[in-house]
Amino acid sequence: MKIAMLGSGFIARFYAGSLHAQRRKDHLVMVYSRNEKNAKRFADDYGLPFYTTSMEEAISHPEVDVVLISLPNNLHEAAVLACASAKKHVICTKPLGRNAGEAKRMLLAVEEAGIFGGYLEDLCYTPKFLKSMESVKRGDIGRVLWAKSRETHPGPHSDWFWDKEKSGGGAIIDLGCHCVEISRNFIGKNVKPMEVMCWADTQVHPIEAEDHAIGLVKYANGAIGQFEVSWTFRGGMDLRDEVMGTEGTIWVNSFLRTGFEMFTTGKGGEGYVAEKAESTTGWLFPVGDEAHELGYPHMFTDMFSAIEEKREPLETFYDGYVVNAILDAAYKSAKTKVWEPVVLEDWRGDSPERTKKNWKSYDEHHYLIKEEVLPNGDAKLILKHKETGEIIQRVRTV
Amino acid sequence: MKIAMLGSGFIARFYAGSLHAQRRKDHLVMVYSRNEKNAKRFADDYGLPFYTTSMEEAISHPEVDVVLISLPNNLHEAAVLACASAKKHVICTKPLGRNAGEAKRMLLAVEEAGIFGGYLEDLCYTPKFLKSMESVKRGDIGRVLWAKSRETHPGPHSDWFWDKEKSGGGAIIDLGCHCVEISRNFIGKNVKPMEVMCWADTQVHPIEAEDHAIGLVKYANGAIGQFEVSWTFRGGMDLRDEVMGTEGTIWVNSFLRTGFEMFTTGKGGEGYVAEKAESTTGWLFPVGDEAHELGYPHMFTDMFSAIEEKREPLETFYDGYVVNAILDAAYKSAKTKVWEPVVLEDWRGDSPERTKKNWKSYDEHHYLIKEEVLPNGDAKLILKHKETGEIIQRVRTV
Amino acid sequence: MKIAMLGSGFIARFYAGSLHAQRRKDHLVMVYSRNEKNAKRFADDYGLPFYTTSMEEAISHPEVDVVLISLPNNLHEAAVLACASAKKHVICTKPLGRNAGEAKRMLLAVEEAGIFGGYLEDLCYTPKFLKSMESVKRGDIGRVLWAKSRETHPGPHSDWFWDKEKSGGGAIIDLGCHCVEISRNFIGKNVKPMEVMCWADTQVHPIEAEDHAIGLVKYANGAIGQFEVSWTFRGGMDLRDEVMGTEGTIWVNSFLRTGFEMFTTGKGGEGYVAEKAESTTGWLFPVGDEAHELGYPHMFTDMFSAIEEKREPLETFYDGYVVNAILDAAYKSAKTKVWEPVVLEDWRGDSPERTKKNWKSYDEHHYLIKEEVLPNGDAKLILKHKETGEIIQRVRTV
Amino acid sequence: MKIAMLGSGFIARFYAGSLHAQRRKDHLVMVYSRNEKNAKRFADDYGLPFYTTSMEEAISHPEVDVVLISLPNNLHEAAVLACASAKKHVICTKPLGRNAGEAKRMLLAVEEAGIFGGYLEDLCYTPKFLKSMESVKRGDIGRVLWAKSRETHPGPHSDWFWDKEKSGGGAIIDLGCHCVEISRNFIGKNVKPMEVMCWADTQVHPIEAEDHAIGLVKYANGAIGQFEVSWTFRGGMDLRDEVMGTEGTIWVNSFLRTGFEMFTTGKGGEGYVAEKAESTTGWLFPVGDEAHELGYPHMFTDMFSAIEEKREPLETFYDGYVVNAILDAAYKSAKTKVWEPVVLEDWRGDSPERTKKNWKSYDEHHYLIKEEVLPNGDAKLILKHKETGEIIQRVRTV
Repeated sequence: MKIAMLGSGFIARFYAGSLHAQRRKDHLVMVYSRNEKNAKRFADDYGLPFYTTSMEEAISHPEVDVVLISLPNNLHEAAVLACASAKKHVICTKPLGRNAGEAKRMLLAVEEAGIFGGYLEDLCYTPKFLKSMESVKRGDIGRVLWAKSRETHPGPHSDWFWDKEKSGGGAIIDLGCHCVEISRNFIGKNVKPMEVMCWADTQVHPIEAEDHAIGLVKYANGAIGQFEVSWTFRGGMDLRDEVMGTEGTIWVNSFLRTGFEMFTTGKGGEGYVAEKAESTTGWLFPVGDEAHELGYPHMFTDMFSAIEEKREPLETFYDGYVVNAILDAAYKSAKTKVWEPVVLEDWRGDSPERTKKNWKSYDEHHYLIKEEVLPNGDAKLILKHKETGEIIQRVRTV
Repeated sequence: MKIAMLGSGFIARFYAGSLHAQRRKDHLVMVYSRNEKNAKRFADDYGLPFYTTSMEEAISHPEVDVVLISLPNNLHEAAVLACASAKKHVICTKPLGRNAGEAKRMLLAVEEAGIFGGYLEDLCYTPKFLKSMESVKRGDIGRVLWAKSRETHPGPHSDWFWDKEKSGGGAIIDLGCHCVEISRNFIGKNVKPMEVMCWADTQVHPIEAEDHAIGLVKYANGAIGQFEVSWTFRGGMDLRDEVMGTEGTIWVNSFLRTGFEMFTTGKGGEGYVAEKAESTTGWLFPVGDEAHELGYPHMFTDMFSAIEEKREPLETFYDGYVVNAILDAAYKSAKTKVWEPVVLEDWRGDSPERTKKNWKSYDEHHYLIKEEVLPNGDAKLILKHKETGEIIQRVRTV
Repeated sequence: MKIAMLGSGFIARFYAGSLHAQRRKDHLVMVYSRNEKNAKRFADDYGLPFYTTSMEEAISHPEVDVVLISLPNNLHEAAVLACASAKKHVICTKPLGRNAGEAKRMLLAVEEAGIFGGYLEDLCYTPKFLKSMESVKRGDIGRVLWAKSRETHPGPHSDWFWDKEKSGGGAIIDLGCHCVEISRNFIGKNVKPMEVMCWADTQVHPIEAEDHAIGLVKYANGAIGQFEVSWTFRGGMDLRDEVMGTEGTIWVNSFLRTGFEMFTTGKGGEGYVAEKAESTTGWLFPVGDEAHELGYPHMFTDMFSAIEEKREPLETFYDGYVVNAILDAAYKSAKTKVWEPVVLEDWRGDSPERTKKNWKSYDEHHYLIKEEVLPNGDAKLILKHKETGEIIQRVRTV
Repeated sequence: MKIAMLGSGFIARFYAGSLHAQRRKDHLVMVYSRNEKNAKRFADDYGLPFYTTSMEEAISHPEVDVVLISLPNNLHEAAVLACASAKKHVICTKPLGRNAGEAKRMLLAVEEAGIFGGYLEDLCYTPKFLKSMESVKRGDIGRVLWAKSRETHPGPHSDWFWDKEKSGGGAIIDLGCHCVEISRNFIGKNVKPMEVMCWADTQVHPIEAEDHAIGLVKYANGAIGQFEVSWTFRGGMDLRDEVMGTEGTIWVNSFLRTGFEMFTTGKGGEGYVAEKAESTTGWLFPVGDEAHELGYPHMFTDMFSAIEEKREPLETFYDGYVVNAILDAAYKSAKTKVWEPVVLEDWRGDSPERTKKNWKSYDEHHYLIKEEVLPNGDAKLILKHKETGEIIQRVRTV
């Protein structure tokens, strides 16, 4: 595949690094930036034959098979619409839109144009996440009850993130889009997100947008997706997921604790540790191959394979739209202070009927609530009478 | 000190084990249980001279200095009132009451009787917690923004916990009382808890009470206390605290990951691992000295020293009352689905004025939002104009 | 028990802190130091009624039940002999002697005087170690094959440690005494240590003694005890044990990674983290209750209970003697560069016959070497013919 | 690149999986196996156009650019010589030979033929290892004093590994080759390995070869490389490296603890966890992308890039030869029980002169041994007089 990059900032460089690593078949041929100096520097750094300050030119260039959007959030819609006009496949960084309205227009444009639309939700492609999903689908942890995803760090690296108008918000739109889609995958993409409760505040930084937020997303089957996002965390970039199921648990640490620890007095040398690390001496936690741990290689592999195989990628523009709808409800809830419904004009999953609970019988007359061996060796059964509701315990003394 | 134990169940045994370990000065002399067989077994197991099935007798016995209440929640109030009548010092297990009304009556009874009332909130006495509090008080992590405490396990060990009438609720009253008081300590006991948002559901067990809940407690200074409690967790007992401050972070794992790992095929032997462990083969995570890790020795040391020194313990009946008031708001919010105010008729801390934010100036005209070194070596400053509010970035290329 | 402390330095303070914590029954009443100022400061700090600069006076004082030796290694023997003369029970810090000769004389003196002699090997009393030993004794990990203990840090805190004449050596005598006794417990105290191979070097510090050493101790049953000791480690105090058994594995981290993590920018406050921590900003790893994690409370509980119950403690002067004999062989091997026999004139355990290996039969004609499921789902059996010795594999394809 | 695979077993499949993943440019076109059924199955599984039971045919096929040897150890030499005859570039799995004699003949054959010879030491290409090496080269941890590498698991997956004649030994040749080369990289490839001390035993399995060994490799500059290898470990595949430097520490866990934890009761589903995992219920430790964590993608990227760029890869046939020479000394030492010299007829690094120690002066008359802040706040300096050698301490009381 020959790819045009729109944008030349931090995330564009992360994408370029992944695409050009490990002798991959797919390469960037073109970069667009409003700023010619940046475009040229980027083209030089990655050895691209072309660069331009015209988005139209980048998209329509005959050497380009796919357009990769790495622009600030407020420029996604125009770029997608331009790709649709030019009938060029498009893959777009996260979040898809600043809100569900933008996302829906992008979704429709891509579908009407008949082009490929891939949603670059990298954290749904990390090796740990992909393997976790295999386990969940195989039933290893039973029915998923709760899926929490946390992304917190000391704040983003470019000015536009901090500008609510350009980004569409603060930590919720920037980081929450990851967390919401991670939880949604664990709970099941066919399960309808119903309503959202969210707390958000600007606790530290001199900005209008929120720099810290917690949200709960209730799904139709009673499962809860939880997101914890912040630009006020100290100590690096904290990316963790936790899933509770009826038969098991998954804990994933994607960045700060991956089995790699280093101590340095700083008297020898010190240098780059990992994205958003906040210290360069003492105990440090480097990350082996950052792009890989963050999911970029597997994401691009899926995207380009999907284009060739004429199938959908794991993460589509539709997914991006659902995420935006959930985040819209979160922003609303943070203001109204009540649970807000997720407005999905275009819902393509299962109809929202709550899963029936299956209670385990102990005998004809009782449900089994619990059994446990106590420290002193006694075994205890807790039972509930099916009709009277009375709760009793039976102890077997050693 | 000579102590009378009211109750002879799981927690009574945990308490007794701690009191009689490590050659301590303070000893149980008496145990009361409604059930004579249980009372006798307990007295035999711990070598106590007296046991009784009369609570009055236990409390008024001349050998008894302090009464230790280890009874089901619905029996706390009567026991405390009996101690007040008998003018015997009392220390009571958590939660203090099933609700703030009960707790307040107990608080007043103790204060009017002029006796000592200690609240046995053991998780606010774990060695890790005590050392964390030293750090927080010294300012190591700056101003606390968020304090999360999580306690989840597969469910409690006695029938009465599962009976809403006796316990006062489910996972919230059983586990949330710990989490709320942990967060409150980190944020500051003088800071008023203002309102609570809570989700609760009965996801798995055949009971009326909630077996899973998440709550957010908003404090007067804008800090958030978060609790995550569940009786549906699989894999053991998960006790973790996380604190975010403006200058640092604290992560405490109190039980499941403490630097002690064991693998066994199960072909040799297998036995007791740790409280609420759910497996006895494969990878296991034993806990060295469970009672110590859970705070019991330090708790009793503080209680008995406080009685001798005629000072307040770290955790008082008043703290128990505040916790109950917060949990009452949580239960209400779980039903009304809005933020519910914390009703504290008797507030003894600071008046609720929100802490002013201090924004850091970069120069005369700008606030500093952030500075960061990027992977390619560039350094970035994100600034906000003090008057126009415009956000800009300055890049220093290497 | 009323205790006289001989010595007033670092370890004396650690001991005193443990003894006077948690409302224990046993208390220091007397401290001896050559230096009056130190003796007085110590007595003031811990509220002792007596202090002295005369060792004789400390030992023979009528209020004193037990003498606790916290002196530099070269003063242990004289102090023990003085206790034997005065017929006062004695407990002595580690190592017992600077070499097996000294240790043996102390052992004999105590036995002849009929007094109690306790060896204060605290790391064989940590809660994690005690629980590990329960597992090993129960057979959870099968037959122990290898037991490694590692203690490394940036170097000790007092001058005499660095002086070979006073301490008897360097990191081996200072830290190896812990490691050797830990491994010996895991492998079995009745199993005879046969020979030692040791590498030692002075890699960093301007001293005569070794600041880094690795040793292997071969036991009569073929098990290997391994010690890794150093005064050149950077990053804090690294205390880890690893045990391999035929049916399982134990990993213990006693200090640097115990489920307690803190990040601080250092802009708020910073202070004491944990013994031998080397940084006060960035990511730190505090220890909840250091004395407890290092085994002091359980050690003193065992010692004083043993005296009362007229039984041997878990760690005796005889154990200290065996440890010294192993370390003597290690020092010799470091020079001769061959495996050196452990010289034990007084061996009280089993006679050294190597445990027979039990090979598992697969069928009449084959031993089973291994079975495994491969990533592609195939199952493999590796078998060895009992007579021909031929090794074959059988694959079951899915 | 178009690649011929010699061999179709476990490691061949691991290689093929890595080569054909992530849209890489380099592909297998041919597979050779003695067993036609295996050859065909392999070709089908990976979509290869050709397969053969003739090694000659595989090597000389005109479509083949590079030959990849994935054969048992006893067949490496013949395969390399055949590549040299056919003037085809060759990359060979580890260990290079069963001993240094074989390895040297392979090295010479490749050099005389003027073909590329790459040594597939994947664990020197893991992302964590590569990043660690950057830190070490930058000086972050100062001068390396000790580099330990550990690889232990319950035993290999194919019959020939267990047959000493075919493999050249047991755990030392199979796993020690990794560990030795990892340590050697950290210490510096130009530093001559001088002598080896090794313990080896057959502790568990019914085989002639060793199933457990520990070795120390002394380098010319005084640094120590340590290997710990075993086929008797229970609990999965334990791959850990630890490096001590004068200014820092590196700890790498490459497989069993990578920030990915799962608990399952086994009542839902259970399946493949990770290579050599020994349990499928309870707490499990899956690995995200196993091939990536084990270094395969970065290894092949380096190999094929090196061929194109006509440069040496990071790991060459010469490195394989040095590793074999070190392992030869280890095997000899395990028998003779003394330190055995590493025989390197062809040494291409620095001449073995021991690095001079640099002692830090505190003042004109003293070396600084250590400074430390004690728990009670006192600061201590340990000093050594430059001429008299006397060691003193200076305490600054708070």
